[in-house]
Amino acid sequence: MSTDAAPRRIRVIGIGAGHPDQVTVEAVEALRSVDYFVTADKPRKDGADDPLLAAREALLARHLDVVPPVIAVRDPERDRSPSDYDQAVVDWHDARAAAYEQVLLDNEGDVGFLVWGDPAFYDSTIRIVEKVLARGQVEAEWDVIPGISSLQQLAARHRIVLHDIGQPILVTTGRRLHEARDSGAENILVMLNSTIDLEGFEEWTIWWGANLGTADEALVSGRVTEVAVEVLTTRIDVKTRVGWIMDVYLLRRIAR
Amino acid sequence: MSTDAAPRRIRVIGIGAGHPDQVTVEAVEALRSVDYFVTADKPRKDGADDPLLAAREALLARHLDVVPPVIAVRDPERDRSPSDYDQAVVDWHDARAAAYEQVLLDNEGDVGFLVWGDPAFYDSTIRIVEKVLARGQVEAEWDVIPGISSLQQLAARHRIVLHDIGQPILVTTGRRLHEARDSGAENILVMLNSTIDLEGFEEWTIWWGANLGTADEALVSGRVTEVAVEVLTTRIDVKTRVGWIMDVYLLRRIAR
Repeated sequence: MSTDAAPRRIRVIGIGAGHPDQVTVEAVEALRSVDYFVTADKPRKDGADDPLLAAREALLARHLDVVPPVIAVRDPERDRSPSDYDQAVVDWHDARAAAYEQVLLDNEGDVGFLVWGDPAFYDSTIRIVEKVLARGQVEAEWDVIPGISSLQQLAARHRIVLHDIGQPILVTTGRRLHEARDSGAENILVMLNSTIDLEGFEEWTIWWGANLGTADEALVSGRVTEVAVEVLTTRIDVKTRVGWIMDVYLLRRIAR
Repeated sequence: MSTDAAPRRIRVIGIGAGHPDQVTVEAVEALRSVDYFVTADKPRKDGADDPLLAAREALLARHLDVVPPVIAVRDPERDRSPSDYDQAVVDWHDARAAAYEQVLLDNEGDVGFLVWGDPAFYDSTIRIVEKVLARGQVEAEWDVIPGISSLQQLAARHRIVLHDIGQPILVTTGRRLHEARDSGAENILVMLNSTIDLEGFEEWTIWWGANLGTADEALVSGRVTEVAVEVLTTRIDVKTRVGWIMDVYLLRRIAR
C-alpha cells in the first residue's frame, strides 16, 4: 500500500496465459501490493462482458484474500482497416493513454495494470504507461513483472522446444506470416490471428493451440497438409462454443 | 507422490530466470508433487560447484517445507569445436539420455527435472526426456511446466516491449547473430553468448542484461556506438566478480 512518504507506484503485472495458477509468486506479491487494478476491457459487439472477465476474477479470487477495486477502462474505438496501420495504432495508444491518465488522476494510490500473458509480447500496456507518464500529469515509480505468454503455454502443452537445435525462432503476427516465410524463416511463431491462411505451408508442420490455460483449451498438431482442416474447424468450434478465441501457433518447415 | 496405482510421472519444470519468486504457482505445486529432482550440473573447470547451485537451493528452500533429494547428473564431456555442430549436439544428447535413464532406473518415484528459464527456449531437457522414453527402459507419463525465461526478465527489467509495434522478433544464438542481421531481421533477441561481437551493429540500439533475477544482475542499454564498451567491460566485471555469467540481449535497428 502507498504511504505519504513513498512515491506512488504503477506496476505492470503479467498474469499468464489464462490458468489462475500460471502466475508467478512475484506477480502474486505484486497483485497484493496495490490499491486498485486497471484493465482494458473489450466488450463484445453484442454488449456482453469481456469474455476474459470471469478468468480474471477467478485468478484474483484465487490469490487475494480481499480483491481491491478493478477499474475497467473501455478501449477507445479503433480503426480496423486504416490506410496507415502503424499510425492507427499510435493514435489508438494516445487515446488509451488519455483514458488511463484520467483514471489515475481520479483515483489515488498504487496501481496494478493487469496484462494477460507477458507485457513484453504484443501488448500495449508498457507503451501506454510511458505515454501517461510523459504527459506529466501523473507522477509515479513503475516496474514490470513478467508473465507466462501463450506461446510458452503452447510449447508446454505440446511438450516441444520452440526451435530445432541451435536454430532461430521468428515471432510475428498473423498479418505478417507470409512475409516471414518469404524472408527465409523456417520456424515461425504466430500470435494475434484474425484468420489463418496456411496456403504455401504444405511442407511445414504446425503446432496450434487456442484458449490456452483455460478449461476450453484446444490443441492440434501435425503436418499442415494433414491437419489444416482440423485447425480451421476447431477454431470455429471453439469460437462458437466459448464465445471467443485466442490462438497461437508454431510453423516449422519440414527438413528437406 | 506416486502410488502403485498411478503411472510414474516425469515433470519438466521451468523454474524461471534466477529469482526464487520468479516461479509460477503451478511450478511450485509441481515441485511439491515429486519424489526427487534431477538436474544437469556443470561443474566449473576449477572443480568448484555449479555456480547456480546456491540459487537453486535457495529457490527450493523458499517453496518446499521438505526438499526431496536432488540428484545431479554430471554432463558428459562435449566436443566444443566439432566439425559438425548439429551432430555433436545430437551425440551429446544421446550421452545425456543414457545418463538420465540410469538415474531413473536406479531411483523409483515421480521425478522433477529442474530447468532454469523456460524448457521451450534453447534447453535440451525436453529432447532428452523424449530420448529416455524412446529407449523403452523407463515408462512414465510426462508434462512440461513453463517458466519465465531470461529474455522476458530482460524485457521486464528494461521495461520494454520486445518489438516495435506490430513488428517481428527474431530469437537466435550469439553464434548466428550476424546471419540473422544478414537475413534482414531488425529486432534480434540473442541468447547463449560465449562472446559478443557488435561489429556492423553501429546503427542499432542494444538492451543487455546479465545474471538476470539474481543479486548480481547487471543491465546496460543505449545506442551500440555509445555503450558497446560498457557492455563488454560489464561482462568481464560480472564474470570476474561472480565467477559466472549468463547474458542475453536485444538489438533493434534504429529507424532510418
